Amino acid sequence: MTTTYIKGGTVVSSTGRTEADVLVDGEKVVAVLAPGSALLGHDLAAGADTVIDATGKYVIPGGIDAHTHMQMPFGGTEASDTFETGTRAAAWGGTTTIIDFAIQRYGERVEEGLAAWHDKAGGNCAIDYGFHQIIGGVDEFSLKAMETLVDEGVSSYKLFMAYPGVFYSDDAQILQAMQKAADLGLLTMMHAENGPAIDVLAEQLYNQGKTDPYYHGIARAWQMEEEATHRAIMLADVTNAPLYVVHVSAKQAVEQLAAARGRGKNVFAETCPQYLYLSLEEQLGAPGFEGAKWVCSTPLRSREEGHQDAMWQGLRTNDLQMVSTDHCPFCMKDQKELGIGDFRAIPNGIGSVEHRMNLMYQGVVTGQISLERWVELTSTTPARMFGLYGTKGVIAPGADADIVVYDPNGHTSIGLEKTHHMNMDYAAWEGFEIDGHVDTVLSRGRVLVDGGEYHGSTGHGRYLKRGLSQYLV
Amino acid sequence: MTTTYIKGGTVVSSTGRTEADVLVDGEKVVAVLAPGSALLGHDLAAGADTVIDATGKYVIPGGIDAHTHMQMPFGGTEASDTFETGTRAAAWGGTTTIIDFAIQRYGERVEEGLAAWHDKAGGNCAIDYGFHQIIGGVDEFSLKAMETLVDEGVSSYKLFMAYPGVFYSDDAQILQAMQKAADLGLLTMMHAENGPAIDVLAEQLYNQGKTDPYYHGIARAWQMEEEATHRAIMLADVTNAPLYVVHVSAKQAVEQLAAARGRGKNVFAETCPQYLYLSLEEQLGAPGFEGAKWVCSTPLRSREEGHQDAMWQGLRTNDLQMVSTDHCPFCMKDQKELGIGDFRAIPNGIGSVEHRMNLMYQGVVTGQISLERWVELTSTTPARMFGLYGTKGVIAPGADADIVVYDPNGHTSIGLEKTHHMNMDYAAWEGFEIDGHVDTVLSRGRVLVDGGEYHGSTGHGRYLKRGLSQYLV
Amino acid sequence: MTTTYIKGGTVVSSTGRTEADVLVDGEKVVAVLAPGSALLGHDLAAGADTVIDATGKYVIPGGIDAHTHMQMPFGGTEASDTFETGTRAAAWGGTTTIIDFAIQRYGERVEEGLAAWHDKAGGNCAIDYGFHQIIGGVDEFSLKAMETLVDEGVSSYKLFMAYPGVFYSDDAQILQAMQKAADLGLLTMMHAENGPAIDVLAEQLYNQGKTDPYYHGIARAWQMEEEATHRAIMLADVTNAPLYVVHVSAKQAVEQLAAARGRGKNVFAETCPQYLYLSLEEQLGAPGFEGAKWVCSTPLRSREEGHQDAMWQGLRTNDLQMVSTDHCPFCMKDQKELGIGDFRAIPNGIGSVEHRMNLMYQGVVTGQISLERWVELTSTTPARMFGLYGTKGVIAPGADADIVVYDPNGHTSIGLEKTHHMNMDYAAWEGFEIDGHVDTVLSRGRVLVDGGEYHGSTGHGRYLKRGLSQYLV
Amino acid sequence: MTTTYIKGGTVVSSTGRTEADVLVDGEKVVAVLAPGSALLGHDLAAGADTVIDATGKYVIPGGIDAHTHMQMPFGGTEASDTFETGTRAAAWGGTTTIIDFAIQRYGERVEEGLAAWHDKAGGNCAIDYGFHQIIGGVDEFSLKAMETLVDEGVSSYKLFMAYPGVFYSDDAQILQAMQKAADLGLLTMMHAENGPAIDVLAEQLYNQGKTDPYYHGIARAWQMEEEATHRAIMLADVTNAPLYVVHVSAKQAVEQLAAARGRGKNVFAETCPQYLYLSLEEQLGAPGFEGAKWVCSTPLRSREEGHQDAMWQGLRTNDLQMVSTDHCPFCMKDQKELGIGDFRAIPNGIGSVEHRMNLMYQGVVTGQISLERWVELTSTTPARMFGLYGTKGVIAPGADADIVVYDPNGHTSIGLEKTHHMNMDYAAWEGFEIDGHVDTVLSRGRVLVDGGEYHGSTGHGRYLKRGLSQYLV
Repeated sequence: MTTTYIKGGTVVSSTGRTEADVLVDGEKVVAVLAPGSALLGHDLAAGADTVIDATGKYVIPGGIDAHTHMQMPFGGTEASDTFETGTRAAAWGGTTTIIDFAIQRYGERVEEGLAAWHDKAGGNCAIDYGFHQIIGGVDEFSLKAMETLVDEGVSSYKLFMAYPGVFYSDDAQILQAMQKAADLGLLTMMHAENGPAIDVLAEQLYNQGKTDPYYHGIARAWQMEEEATHRAIMLADVTNAPLYVVHVSAKQAVEQLAAARGRGKNVFAETCPQYLYLSLEEQLGAPGFEGAKWVCSTPLRSREEGHQDAMWQGLRTNDLQMVSTDHCPFCMKDQKELGIGDFRAIPNGIGSVEHRMNLMYQGVVTGQISLERWVELTSTTPARMFGLYGTKGVIAPGADADIVVYDPNGHTSIGLEKTHHMNMDYAAWEGFEIDGHVDTVLSRGRVLVDGGEYHGSTGHGRYLKRGLSQYLV
Repeated sequence: MTTTYIKGGTVVSSTGRTEADVLVDGEKVVAVLAPGSALLGHDLAAGADTVIDATGKYVIPGGIDAHTHMQMPFGGTEASDTFETGTRAAAWGGTTTIIDFAIQRYGERVEEGLAAWHDKAGGNCAIDYGFHQIIGGVDEFSLKAMETLVDEGVSSYKLFMAYPGVFYSDDAQILQAMQKAADLGLLTMMHAENGPAIDVLAEQLYNQGKTDPYYHGIARAWQMEEEATHRAIMLADVTNAPLYVVHVSAKQAVEQLAAARGRGKNVFAETCPQYLYLSLEEQLGAPGFEGAKWVCSTPLRSREEGHQDAMWQGLRTNDLQMVSTDHCPFCMKDQKELGIGDFRAIPNGIGSVEHRMNLMYQGVVTGQISLERWVELTSTTPARMFGLYGTKGVIAPGADADIVVYDPNGHTSIGLEKTHHMNMDYAAWEGFEIDGHVDTVLSRGRVLVDGGEYHGSTGHGRYLKRGLSQYLV
Repeated sequence: MTTTYIKGGTVVSSTGRTEADVLVDGEKVVAVLAPGSALLGHDLAAGADTVIDATGKYVIPGGIDAHTHMQMPFGGTEASDTFETGTRAAAWGGTTTIIDFAIQRYGERVEEGLAAWHDKAGGNCAIDYGFHQIIGGVDEFSLKAMETLVDEGVSSYKLFMAYPGVFYSDDAQILQAMQKAADLGLLTMMHAENGPAIDVLAEQLYNQGKTDPYYHGIARAWQMEEEATHRAIMLADVTNAPLYVVHVSAKQAVEQLAAARGRGKNVFAETCPQYLYLSLEEQLGAPGFEGAKWVCSTPLRSREEGHQDAMWQGLRTNDLQMVSTDHCPFCMKDQKELGIGDFRAIPNGIGSVEHRMNLMYQGVVTGQISLERWVELTSTTPARMFGLYGTKGVIAPGADADIVVYDPNGHTSIGLEKTHHMNMDYAAWEGFEIDGHVDTVLSRGRVLVDGGEYHGSTGHGRYLKRGLSQYLV
Repeated sequence: MTTTYIKGGTVVSSTGRTEADVLVDGEKVVAVLAPGSALLGHDLAAGADTVIDATGKYVIPGGIDAHTHMQMPFGGTEASDTFETGTRAAAWGGTTTIIDFAIQRYGERVEEGLAAWHDKAGGNCAIDYGFHQIIGGVDEFSLKAMETLVDEGVSSYKLFMAYPGVFYSDDAQILQAMQKAADLGLLTMMHAENGPAIDVLAEQLYNQGKTDPYYHGIARAWQMEEEATHRAIMLADVTNAPLYVVHVSAKQAVEQLAAARGRGKNVFAETCPQYLYLSLEEQLGAPGFEGAKWVCSTPLRSREEGHQDAMWQGLRTNDLQMVSTDHCPFCMKDQKELGIGDFRAIPNGIGSVEHRMNLMYQGVVTGQISLERWVELTSTTPARMFGLYGTKGVIAPGADADIVVYDPNGHTSIGLEKTHHMNMDYAAWEGFEIDGHVDTVLSRGRVLVDGGEYHGSTGHGRYLKRGLSQYLV
């Protein structure tokens, strides 16, 4: 068992910052201690195998990206990051845990879906990983199978109000699943867009010859997100099921979430970096087919309508509790290009798992959020929300030594040719400049990244059996 | 320098709980470490002067009561707790920091008011203490004097929209003070009740022969609190001044606070245990003059109208961020009795500084709030709000060793003859039963309370120079 | 052509009251004139065939009940009032126009549905009547058929978000129908309840042995109405279609309507007398099977939750614009009794067409609404909403002489044995006492009711080709 | 007694339009009758002294401007329109009633203020007029004097939350006045701006050298209007006093009004044409001193912030019930010029009494409001709100024959050299083009304007003793 001593840094938690050293023994943090390492005369640094100098830097719990889709099948192709490439890229960016989605579709068995994802991820991950379970077909069998999820360490599952014929659940199905979830303590995650109505709008646009990527954003109007968000909230209300809405992008959806929370409901939500920085006009509306790079659902929204500002504000007011990526990369060649001439056929997804910590830190630099809130949004709340707190999401004795040393005086230039480890042939974040840098990344006590070098290994990452949400009132 | 080792407990923070030991060296926490005390072979417990066994108990940061009025002059009398008796009672109840209010009135100098309070408190306190500054007369001199407050460690000041002729500021005065505060970084605390209108209503009731304590609550109608709360918010809005509303009791006031926060404003507020547990009908409306025991402003509100439930909900939704006591005790004899025959002459105030931690813990027992939220509401957020975090409000290296060992299997019966150390001739909380117990209390490393014994001493408490609020976005 | 002179009354409109006489020539009002009848020396009363003395009474435009279901097929039976009996009862109660619903179901042709209803009503009505069109199966044929409705004088149509397998439309269907309606100028009427979710809840209750009528109200929870109301509003928003929500009963649904109207949307709604006066606890929860008398959808709501008060308030604030009956009577014997042992099989409906004017007048007596608002809610706005204004809904030259002389000093006792002309074997309003009385009723100049006698005739009523809504902004 | 027959026009009411003729006998409408004039064989047109052909035109009740200040003293000067010139201009523009404000200031007697205004107006008006009473000094004498107002036909009075030292009432005064008003049935009108805070802001701007008219709008920030509006609402709430807020211009103030109305409160408000059409940026921010032309309070608001659109929407949603002018003209020379170098010294006011009907009709042309709503906003609701309905605000038997024949095919170009009868040396509405024209104006049966000629006379106008508001629930 190796020991590591991180000295001289500023340990940042979700509530404040402390000048403190951190002692790691094997995979665990064993002490957070006053700088200088001499406790009652014992010099702990001297006895450590490795000493990391974090002077002038932030020492934070490793990032937790609670929404990724590694090698996810979609429309005849598959997300371009494998668990191997995707988790390695995550590590480069200071994320030490992902929670990916195992998939069950209509007619399939939940147990088999979960097993398939264990097969995909097992032995291939650079960092620790957990699973949510997608229930794409709510029926008596999948409802029954939900009972086994908690024991499997899968304490959350996801339903879709979009994608009829693929993952879609109707309200009768959602109601039954939520009832079951409320009984079991499972957290219901919801893709909240009115799919049946969107599909009508999309087909109409296509029939009118409006086939460019831009119309992806027009078809998926904010009204369709707001509506589904409200509906999910009311179905959760009638079933007493806690609710977590994924990838919120419409300011009106935030208003619905805020109203429900004001009534004291257990309603939570994430947004993603793309909804904070990118827009319908600038990215999705790029000339020609280039907008396809940023086709994702929910879509990028109009900056003129103010959705981006509303997302930042929601993060400040805690109407949005977390930031995940919805990482689901596709290459332009052979993948995004499937939708040339028909935006409906463009694989949905943006690759961001590598950049989330940096992109959110830039929000600290620009004053959108506090340093503490950065840690809370990217690590502490994800851990609490999804039953990992204590092991993850905090630097405290007993926690896994998932630690990032972040240099506020460093700099990161994002670009395909510069700092890009995701398996994509373009960078959705090309040209973004970050006034900070991920210097060192530890996962369970092991240094994965340091000094611009990658020291990780495929298979280091372990499956996390998660407990019930620790964030509910 | 003495060393203390707290072992076997569950350290609770505002985000979660950890099985960890805590090492105290002199006045400071120097390490939070994995249970068992052996770090890299060093047995830290063995070297400690004192070992406290916290097995099966919660180890939490000492309570911070950010709103007390020790020996405050009011209507010809004075609050019955001195800094000596009041802080000793606080220590008994697990509160290790108070922030009291130095007073300047119209025509007085701010500097002299602050000096007078230093005189009262200095050398007399059992626990650490800070000051807010009441500005009861906004004029060119007091506005100028505000510039010195930050250097004095007084980073917050309070205005009154109530009590015309005593502390009252009109809107022109409030606007100017807020502008100054915004420039200086001071946090504006507000007693938000429409005093001029209330005084009309109170006089009318008196003239109608409605002189019982109950009419104190009728005169101070919720509309008067809601109105002033909204007005304070808008004056803060136009001056860009952060705002903190004290002793919120009306659900409609919470709605105003929530709306402002939803717009992204730096608007904060506390409620007090009396607004969570007591009511207009039951306490203030007690037969005869007994209701005088619970005359305070803002007043106890109607349970039928649902204000108490709304306060609990506000604590859950974070529309209310903290719980203070507004501790301002008066004896019935010679004090409260001044108002027999005229509720307007009853000294305003309830004594709670001793019981806040217990009363709020009972909210954990009944499921109103989580264990973590308890710590956040009573210690961590008060520290952040008022510029003490790092020193207070957290158990982390470098922090003052203000620590409470709380036993969830203990029990506390509140009553004048049982557990009452405040200088009062009645107990406002007589008969309340708490399913928990404050076992051990440390202040800067020194044990003040343990095993039902008091080990503190007058003068142990030091003045805290507070920094600017750490809670603002 | 006969002439009638109504003298000495107070003509009440939706904005005020005027002492004026009314001259009717044939079927039309030809003059509203100063009392006394002498215009420039011409004595008009002297030349009239009939003089009605309205001294001390209100002269109001005849009631318009915009929501009735005469002889409607439902669950294997048929509403017990035919167009003959139902319109006669309406006339007795001061209602001179009904708008009933022609029905198209999935797989049927709209034109045939409309024709069938013309067959049922033609030649059988005592008063004038119009039709809305129910589209129970949205497909390419029915969408096409909508284009003919305006020419048929059917300027509004209705969709159902409830009753899967019967009338239900999913969101894709609703969206398409609304788009078509927006193009054509048709007003979309919506039964807003989440049917698929309700059916799950109802089945669960039934399986738990909760089979009494009371559980009809539990299954159809207010959340299901609120949700569907919001969804309908958003689908209308995205299609720019004006929306009219029928039979609103939940206060939270009113809040949704109010919010949409505050955003400037063309969103309208009716409530019904049963939601103003009756409740879940008192009527639907009556012992044994008696509650079946008041099984209707949306259901009667909890008085404790305050829905009834909210309906009255909505009528005052104009968040609800009209009062209709949703008249759909069934006898207990052989009809309601179908649901003994299974509340799901109870035919849905209450008979009120006869009593609406009286029941709403009682709201004037109790101070819930003004006299002018009574006229507005029951006649003027229904006329404007559904394209009848000018012909109906107002006493003005050129308007049909549909006039009621209402005596505020009269009295009406409602009861099966007393004043009941609807074809039912029980009275849903048994025991209600009204401080007013319908004295005289004219339909197109002809006296239908006077002096407690019925002078009407089957077939007097004509079909009304309605124009587009005159109420939209 | 002369008789007039208006034939062939479309009579427009607040609920609809009717093809009808109108018979006037002396000062009153005596009949509204079917076109053609033959009633039971009597040819009424033939017997009339005058026949006015309104074919193709609208026949509407004369405009009621419920907010004017003729020859009002302000800051050492006086509004430039006398009752003679101002009411003549009103008549030119289709307004046949004004309600002006009698003034009482601190230390003055209400009775004397009212008498003084009777002296100013008596014998000088071209059209009928009423008075509201300004109470500029609430004390025991003015409170007592309020008891006489109803008998004087003054059923409404106005308080100011602005203008400290001039008209300002503090909250204690407002509360007492509202209590008295609630008892008496008086309607409380409120100038809702936080004057004490505004005066601080204005002085600060002046001291910073920001002296241009534009800063009038900056000092009177929307927050100050929103705040005072909310405060007035809550003081009205606690006293059960109906409230009418004058000259609303801030969208946030409308939100407060809407929220209060949603709670079922008797809260009403007007806006003015200047807040619908003009803006801070364009008019108040005009180069040099020109902005002074549009200095009024509340001020013109920012178009970028969307206040103008919000006012139109408020008129549609009935959150704003009426449009008045707040007519208070000052010439640039010798009057507005008093404020060169100090915006605080610019007399506040804009002259619009002549153009209100036309400006609002243009809102019909552009689709902002319906034709019926035009009549409602400018005549019917003002009459109902201020106790004139029946006599004014409607074309019905018994009503005063105040009638305007308005030509929707005419055109009006507003400009000082064109169509300007107000006593001003500039036109606030210079260059506005209206797609309609006031053809004929009758006041109590007498033609004041016809064929571009003025036939009115000074002294024709009579004082109107108004009844209590007819608009309350």
